[in-house]
Amino acid sequence: MIRRAALFLALMAPVAADEGMWLFNQPPRERLRKDYGFELTDVWLDHVMKSSVRFNNGGSGGFVSQDGLVVTNHHIGSDSLQKLSRPGKDLVQQGFYAATLADEARCPDLELNVLQSIEDITSQVEGTVKPGMSLEEGANARRGFMAALEKSESEKTGLRCDVVTLYLGGAYHLYRYKKYTDVRLVMAPEQAAAFYGGDADNFEYPRYDFDICFFRIYENNKPLHGNPYMKWKPQGAKPGDLVFVTGHPGRTNRLETMARLEHLRDQTLPFRLAALRSEEMCLRLYSQRGPEQRRQAQAELYSVANARKAYSGQYEGLLDHGLMGIKQQRENSHRQAAAQAGSAYDVISRAQNTLSHYEKEYYLLEQRLAVQGTAFEFARHLARWSNEKGKSNGDRLREYRESNQDSLWQEVLSPAEIFPELEVAQLTASLSFAAETLGGEHPTVQMLLAGKSPEARANELIRSSSVTRLGARKRYKEMTSAELKAQGDPLINLAFAIDEASRKVRRRYELEVMEPELGAYAQIARSQFAVQGKDLAPDATFSLRLAYGQVSGYQEAGRSVPWATTLGQLFANARLHNNEEPFRLPKRWWDREKALDPKMTYDFVSTADTIGGNSGSPVINRQAEVVGVNFDRNRFGLTRNFLYSDRQARHVSVHSPVVLHLLERLYGAERVADELRLGRRPLK
Amino acid sequence: MIRRAALFLALMAPVAADEGMWLFNQPPRERLRKDYGFELTDVWLDHVMKSSVRFNNGGSGGFVSQDGLVVTNHHIGSDSLQKLSRPGKDLVQQGFYAATLADEARCPDLELNVLQSIEDITSQVEGTVKPGMSLEEGANARRGFMAALEKSESEKTGLRCDVVTLYLGGAYHLYRYKKYTDVRLVMAPEQAAAFYGGDADNFEYPRYDFDICFFRIYENNKPLHGNPYMKWKPQGAKPGDLVFVTGHPGRTNRLETMARLEHLRDQTLPFRLAALRSEEMCLRLYSQRGPEQRRQAQAELYSVANARKAYSGQYEGLLDHGLMGIKQQRENSHRQAAAQAGSAYDVISRAQNTLSHYEKEYYLLEQRLAVQGTAFEFARHLARWSNEKGKSNGDRLREYRESNQDSLWQEVLSPAEIFPELEVAQLTASLSFAAETLGGEHPTVQMLLAGKSPEARANELIRSSSVTRLGARKRYKEMTSAELKAQGDPLINLAFAIDEASRKVRRRYELEVMEPELGAYAQIARSQFAVQGKDLAPDATFSLRLAYGQVSGYQEAGRSVPWATTLGQLFANARLHNNEEPFRLPKRWWDREKALDPKMTYDFVSTADTIGGNSGSPVINRQAEVVGVNFDRNRFGLTRNFLYSDRQARHVSVHSPVVLHLLERLYGAERVADELRLGRRPLK
Repeated sequence: MIRRAALFLALMAPVAADEGMWLFNQPPRERLRKDYGFELTDVWLDHVMKSSVRFNNGGSGGFVSQDGLVVTNHHIGSDSLQKLSRPGKDLVQQGFYAATLADEARCPDLELNVLQSIEDITSQVEGTVKPGMSLEEGANARRGFMAALEKSESEKTGLRCDVVTLYLGGAYHLYRYKKYTDVRLVMAPEQAAAFYGGDADNFEYPRYDFDICFFRIYENNKPLHGNPYMKWKPQGAKPGDLVFVTGHPGRTNRLETMARLEHLRDQTLPFRLAALRSEEMCLRLYSQRGPEQRRQAQAELYSVANARKAYSGQYEGLLDHGLMGIKQQRENSHRQAAAQAGSAYDVISRAQNTLSHYEKEYYLLEQRLAVQGTAFEFARHLARWSNEKGKSNGDRLREYRESNQDSLWQEVLSPAEIFPELEVAQLTASLSFAAETLGGEHPTVQMLLAGKSPEARANELIRSSSVTRLGARKRYKEMTSAELKAQGDPLINLAFAIDEASRKVRRRYELEVMEPELGAYAQIARSQFAVQGKDLAPDATFSLRLAYGQVSGYQEAGRSVPWATTLGQLFANARLHNNEEPFRLPKRWWDREKALDPKMTYDFVSTADTIGGNSGSPVINRQAEVVGVNFDRNRFGLTRNFLYSDRQARHVSVHSPVVLHLLERLYGAERVADELRLGRRPLK
Repeated sequence: MIRRAALFLALMAPVAADEGMWLFNQPPRERLRKDYGFELTDVWLDHVMKSSVRFNNGGSGGFVSQDGLVVTNHHIGSDSLQKLSRPGKDLVQQGFYAATLADEARCPDLELNVLQSIEDITSQVEGTVKPGMSLEEGANARRGFMAALEKSESEKTGLRCDVVTLYLGGAYHLYRYKKYTDVRLVMAPEQAAAFYGGDADNFEYPRYDFDICFFRIYENNKPLHGNPYMKWKPQGAKPGDLVFVTGHPGRTNRLETMARLEHLRDQTLPFRLAALRSEEMCLRLYSQRGPEQRRQAQAELYSVANARKAYSGQYEGLLDHGLMGIKQQRENSHRQAAAQAGSAYDVISRAQNTLSHYEKEYYLLEQRLAVQGTAFEFARHLARWSNEKGKSNGDRLREYRESNQDSLWQEVLSPAEIFPELEVAQLTASLSFAAETLGGEHPTVQMLLAGKSPEARANELIRSSSVTRLGARKRYKEMTSAELKAQGDPLINLAFAIDEASRKVRRRYELEVMEPELGAYAQIARSQFAVQGKDLAPDATFSLRLAYGQVSGYQEAGRSVPWATTLGQLFANARLHNNEEPFRLPKRWWDREKALDPKMTYDFVSTADTIGGNSGSPVINRQAEVVGVNFDRNRFGLTRNFLYSDRQARHVSVHSPVVLHLLERLYGAERVADELRLGRRPLK
């Protein structure tokens, strides 16, 4: 057994070098001590945890002053920037600066979460599923327990409480968050500076982006005061420094089996890529109609283009026999070392095979790929809520559980404007995509199109629906199903019409894939823990994680890629591109070029292990001081979903010194720069 | 039988109002006499036929002076504009004007064809297929006969001779063309003026485009003199005028059966759309890297985006029960009226079912959707030619027949530059698309990728291949297969490696779909001729056709859309869009705005029946004078592939007066304007 275990450890090698998006309650103390001579203390961890911020729209951030100032990326703030814009005043493009506290602009529907504590409840959750229960009974019992626990914990603590499933089912932890909904915009640069290089440079390095945005959290109409925060380090970092990234990586697939990866390669990703391309084309075309249309579509377009590029990179990796060979070797070793886990692999393989039969319908209906747009998203919530409201908390679809009600209605009843023309465009493209996928005669397509062309149908659905109006949504929310159906709202009616099929395919997905896989992955995880202990970070789950690594350049095609770029290189690069889109710097930058230090470092890279969702994560040093703000990975990091490597894969951050430099010399935002230097609002 | 035939005529209604892309040897004399009181004479037809020009890269044009001056669209000329460009001098963007004859710039590989005569050879072609022959024997006999006839006719007349299959197999005509390969660029406006509104306004109206380009044909290094030409009409047309469009519509599907249309809807178009989106995304990303990359990719990007928009419109139509209902009704009536044709419909239905099993592979391999780019296209021609050269003319794949040799090598041995970076990008995207379609384990994908990621593989294939160099292609052309294989050129080797699979799926397509359908459509066509005579234009085949219609606006959403736009409206529209891309007028236009007449008509519409391939077609009046140059359809014309309508569907043309106006007042191109007014080069 010893030789087997040794082989297992060598090949399974689940943690290489700086690999790992670590749980704050299972931190990599030993590794840090051994590799970097760093003692990770509970005080340090607690401080960083409570200074970290989750952006509920999919990103990360951190407190950088005792007065509630939060830093994140421009591309995480852009959803709010867009919602605070109006025709002719496009904050995404133009940026924003609140010269005084009174000018800080309240975001219509942004929710921020700050983690307070984590509790391992694995045994309680597993205990709810009794021997002899069917899969469905087990699933219901587990869901019921989780909904009840979240509700009671939330009532007891006043915090937002979420059960997080870790190791794909190997563990369950309860996360308790402070939740903030009065969030105000403080400062954002122009998108042309934040996203300099655009889609062309996305996931590339060297890079020249000022992807920064500041918000402030308010409570009782005053800046939140006294929350832990991370000090801004004016000197930043230097090559070789140990740095940490604290944030919310969204999803990785490192523990997933070969059967799952092959399914991802041959089914899921090709389908998702096709959907994204259709969506992106639609949004690009819409944006081309004029500046106002571009304003309306830009946040969505960014997010779709970003996903398309990320998925393309993942897909490239899954086709590479080199990468897949390593994964296969590790799986073989583990199956050899832990023979009892063998059946678990077969369970997953069978589940993935089953999934092939209805996965597209699952995505089209339940994930709404067939009916894109905010209007239908809200219409379905309203239709479903009219059904779910009468059920007990534990019996509801998970998103309608009591503990999620606030967050749900924060979104559905947002005063942010819905743009009917954009909705028509998105619905046209997605209805067409559904027909392309299922064929014109498919009953779902017949239901979706009602005999009309996608464009005619989309116009009919959007232009005669009241869901686009906040007042109507508020009324609809209070109605019974019967009352709601009686409104004759075509979008609501469509939501009801496809709901049976949609719930059915969701149920199938939950019972035939999720449930069996939960058990199987739990088994695999346990056998891994048995061999190597918990020295293995779980896959990312958009919950708070700590990554660490070293500030360091790398080699590419025989040349050295430096650890950081400079402002001088930015201007040189813009000149090289004739200052043309997407390499066009805003006028302000050219006007003030002379005032800037061309040697000032700009963006830099480190080996720490990040993924999408980490956008806006503070990058901190041993003293938990902010030395940068993470905003991207390079192209070599795109296959990081499956396999970590520190050879060329890097995450990219804005360096902390340049933030002060630009706030002061370019944006006249001394108020913010001073607050970063002081760690509090300036007294004056 | 009379009632049946009447019902058939009423519902089948194959020709409605101004419908029809008519053969020059079967013109709609009766209709024109009856509907417009116009006598179509043989002299008129012969004059127009010999004044019309086919652009071999997919468009149309016409002689407009006795000295070889040819007008077409900017977007038809753009392939040559691109090939005449170099880094920093982008003729597509900047336009071109040859101030003197000596400045006219020779295009590296443009071939123009001018039709001289048409001969109906249906009975000879059908006679080659003897009773008792198998499908394959029949196909071989027909192909052999056609290749021999084309060769002997070509040798006899010195003309390019092509057999054109009409009515999807109902008739065969021999087309004899004069062929010109010394073609020089005379004048082109900036793309921003020619394609004002870009992709957003493509297939839309009202429209404001100066989509014009002038070439001159040379013979023996002198301007071609004395060819028939169409006089330029300085006054243009007015509403209600009868106009003709003479050009080369590419492909319509009006005679195709419901089984074929449903297959198109549920299989072909969704797949083609997915491929186009992948390709377009790749080209857009590449273009964003910088001005030089945009220069390299722009012609291809235009063509892909144009196809994507056209196919989307077709697909919308096929999902519309209204349109499909009419098609179904007509088919039912025809089957009722001509019972003997019933089995033909079944044959087509079976053929389309068969096609489902290998259609994607057919497109991926034989149509090269898996291996996009010019380099592989040439590599395959070279590899195949090394095999085909030893075969007799009639046994070769059709594109390698003797009569096509000149045109083929004009293309493959073009001195136009091939851009390796662009080739890598296109190959990466298309290899990925092949894997997305077939799955990572598919033997074809294994062969294509050789275990590497698409990007790694594309780099390896392009960077180590010599096919991108003209000198290597010239050497490769002369080699035997064995010699060529011994070169170790990876792109050539890939072409050889997938050739067996590619030829196999092509053979299947020809024998299981094309051959049975040729017979079946011939049967259907005969039964239609029996009922209504030949008063039915065949589907478009990129051969010369005559369409006619009326200059006329239309109603949309309760308001009148005028027959023409004006230059004043163009400037107003650009101001409305802040002169931002794609609604940005070139500086020259703003500088000279005052010199232009705002009331001058710009683009105009008519009901004549056109489709892609008609781009650049002269629009002429009863006197065969040029009143405009066709360049697009409006959105309602996108379903014209399946069903003609004159209610809202229109084609869009640049009006002849504005061409003179802009040449003189904006472009200082008096030399060209004078030649148009005089019908010959000015004497001075």
